[in-house]
This record gives sequence, structure tokens and C-alpha cells, in this order.
Amino acid sequence: MAGTPRIPRPTAARVSLYLRELERRLERGESTIRSRELGHCLGLTDTQVRKDLGHIGHLGFPGVGYRIEDLIARLRFLSGTDRGWRAAVVGVGNIGRALLSYDRFESEGFRIVAAFDSDPEKIGRHVGTHEILPMERLGELVRERGIRIAIVTTPPAAAQDAADALVEAGISGILNFAPCRLEVPPSVVSTEVDLGMSLLQLALQVRLVNGELLEIEEDPARSGPVRARSIRR
Amino acid sequence: MAGTPRIPRPTAARVSLYLRELERRLERGESTIRSRELGHCLGLTDTQVRKDLGHIGHLGFPGVGYRIEDLIARLRFLSGTDRGWRAAVVGVGNIGRALLSYDRFESEGFRIVAAFDSDPEKIGRHVGTHEILPMERLGELVRERGIRIAIVTTPPAAAQDAADALVEAGISGILNFAPCRLEVPPSVVSTEVDLGMSLLQLALQVRLVNGELLEIEEDPARSGPVRARSIRR
Repeated sequence: MAGTPRIPRPTAARVSLYLRELERRLERGESTIRSRELGHCLGLTDTQVRKDLGHIGHLGFPGVGYRIEDLIARLRFLSGTDRGWRAAVVGVGNIGRALLSYDRFESEGFRIVAAFDSDPEKIGRHVGTHEILPMERLGELVRERGIRIAIVTTPPAAAQDAADALVEAGISGILNFAPCRLEVPPSVVSTEVDLGMSLLQLALQVRLVNGELLEIEEDPARSGPVRARSIRR
Repeated sequence: MAGTPRIPRPTAARVSLYLRELERRLERGESTIRSRELGHCLGLTDTQVRKDLGHIGHLGFPGVGYRIEDLIARLRFLSGTDRGWRAAVVGVGNIGRALLSYDRFESEGFRIVAAFDSDPEKIGRHVGTHEILPMERLGELVRERGIRIAIVTTPPAAAQDAADALVEAGISGILNFAPCRLEVPPSVVSTEVDLGMSLLQLALQVRLVNGELLEIEEDPARSGPVRARSIRR
């Protein structure tokens, strides 16, 4: 394909959903899939899937469906994970240590090439093959090692300082494990992995399944439940 | 409120979003918030927020908005995190170890009360105050300790066996860190924390922000891009 790929943001938000499902199927030895089947197992409509995959740049074959390997290659290309992203971990506590030893990032297209901490006690120690480096060397190593993404696993109180240093060093994206929203300029992307809230959402679903909360249908024609409607805010 | 609380599923899916934002604001010393402001910072419409909070069971006060503390209490009540959930970690590798030492779960309303592993080398060792227990004791301890939720941090190849044992032991919910979908009966909820895919979605956003991918508008009237439309699947 010539030029820069173009994709709607909602489609981009579903790339990992498609990719994980397609990789599972490839692993099971499947080679093609129909849009309806893919949609069914992801909770999307047939139309939505065809639309998304069209934007992603793949056409299905009539009577056959989509070739799984081609689709995976295209999704890897779009996300740049076929060429590999270089990442740093900032904050080598328990979670940081676990991520430095997490052996699946590499096969997902991410390579952790540096680990930083601000604690002088930790500097110079190793986690696996990673030497823990001082924050002062961040800018230099981001440039030298071509690091574009950082995983912030500091305590919450230190996360914004870490983010400021990362922005200053020229990083493009931050995956933040601290349960706080980081202030970053619009040219930098910051997203969160919020483990407490993941558990809370699971707990809510457990309560719904067990009838401790009852699921009701939303009435799309109404702006809210009756008793809340008479109040203007 | 009398009876079992009732809530639409899309509203339930946004509970953690509201809760995290409201807690941040309470921490900053704020006491009330208007639906418009809350919606603005969460990327939701004013109407959506009023609808959700109505379902959640809170009315705003005209000219004042919502009382943050009341809303938090209500969200904690709905999720059952005000009474505390008892959880187990299954698989004490690097990630499992990190989660056993993660000190924020307790304040979020989750208490890890047991750690299990199938490796005889690990049984009887401690991570902090947690003794690593054999999988054979799962059923007994789930009952004794009132464990309803499990966090699965085994290697991917062992995750389904762990899930089967957990279902057998009577667990209601599983938070799965292995990058595979677990087969569980409909009475059990299983959700995933997929670290590789979190990084991939961040990478995609970084590419969009940096113009390596171009964002296009979706045309809602069309079922897909022109070149994909003529093919029937």
C-alpha cells in the first residue's frame, strides 16, 4: 500500500481485540475466518467487522473469508510491532521487577532495553540482564537506544515526576501502572493499567451474574430513569 | 434503598471510570461535581452521565451538582468493595509475587487471603505474609476463607487447568493475566489483563499522534470503505 495508512480511531481501538483472537485461531491451526464468525466471538456485528477489516486494509475472499495470517501481518504492520518497539521500565519495585522478567513482551513486538529507578540503593543492581540505571541518564539513553515507550511502575506519588522526566527525554508513549492520571503534553500518549479497577469491574460482573445486582435494559428514548428526570443540573 | 439494586450493563461497565475520577477529586479536596464537568473529563456526554448516575441511584442537587462522597459510597456499595472481597492468587511467578505484595488492593476493597501454586518447590515458602499453598487445598480454603475471586498468574499453558480447579472449588470470578481466553461455565466470570495488548494499543495511539497512521472519520451511513463493499461474504 502506498502512503501512510489511514484508520478511524474506533477501528484502531479494536486492533488488539482482533489480533489476539486471530493469533489464538492461527495457533489452533485455522487458516481462514469469516467476518460473521469473528464478529460473533468478539461481540461485534458482521457489518462492523467487515468495516473494520476494510479500514485495516484487507478484503475477504468470497466464499472463503479472510486469511488469518495475512490479517495478523497487517495488524502487526499497523501497530509497528512487526518492527519492534523499544521500551523502558521506570520504577523497579515489585511490579517493575515482574515486567522486566516478563518473557512475552518480546514476542509481542516490544523489547525492554532499559530500567530506571531514582533510589540510589537500587542503581547498579540487576534484574535478570537489566542493570538498574539512574533517572539522570534517561535523556541520554532514550536517544541512544531509540526508546519510544515507557512503562511507569513507580509509587503513585512519584509517577508524575517520572512522567515529566520521560516527556523531557522525548518519549512518545507511557503505560502507567500508578492509579493516577498523568499530565502530559498532547504529543505524548499516556494510558493506564489500573489493577484495582480491573478487579472492581470483575467484582461488579460477579454480582450481576449472581443476582446481587439486577441487570435492567436501558430505555434509549429516555434521558434517564424517571425519578431523576425532573431535576435540572 | 429497598430490594436488590438494578443497573444497566453499560452503566456497570463505567463504574470504575466514575469511581477513579471521583476519588481523585475527593483527594484534591473537592466535595461536589456537576454532571457536565464529570462527563467532560471522562469523554462522556452530560446526558450520559446524568443517566448513569440516576441508575447508580443518586440525584444531583439543583445548582450544586452531585456530592462526591455520597457517589463514591454508592459506587463502593454497588461493587461490594465497601464490605471487602476475598481473593486468591493462583500461580506465584514474577507477576503473582508482585500482586501478592501489591499494597493497594486492600484499600480498593480486595483482600488477598491465599496464594496457590502447583510447583512442589514453591509450596510452603512465603511471599510477605502469604504462605504458598498446594492446589490440592484450593476447594477447602475457598470455602473456609470465603474466597470468591481468583487472580490467575500461571504460565499460559497452565491457566486452563487452574481455571478448571477454581471453578470446581466454587469460585465466582477470575482475573486472568495469561494471554488466553479461559473456558468457564456461564455462572463464572472471567476477564483478562493482557499486558502485551495494552502496550500494543498504546503503540497504535503513539503512531496516530505522530502521523505514522492517519486518523480518518468513519462514514456512519456506509457499511465500509468503497473498495470493500462490492464483495459478499
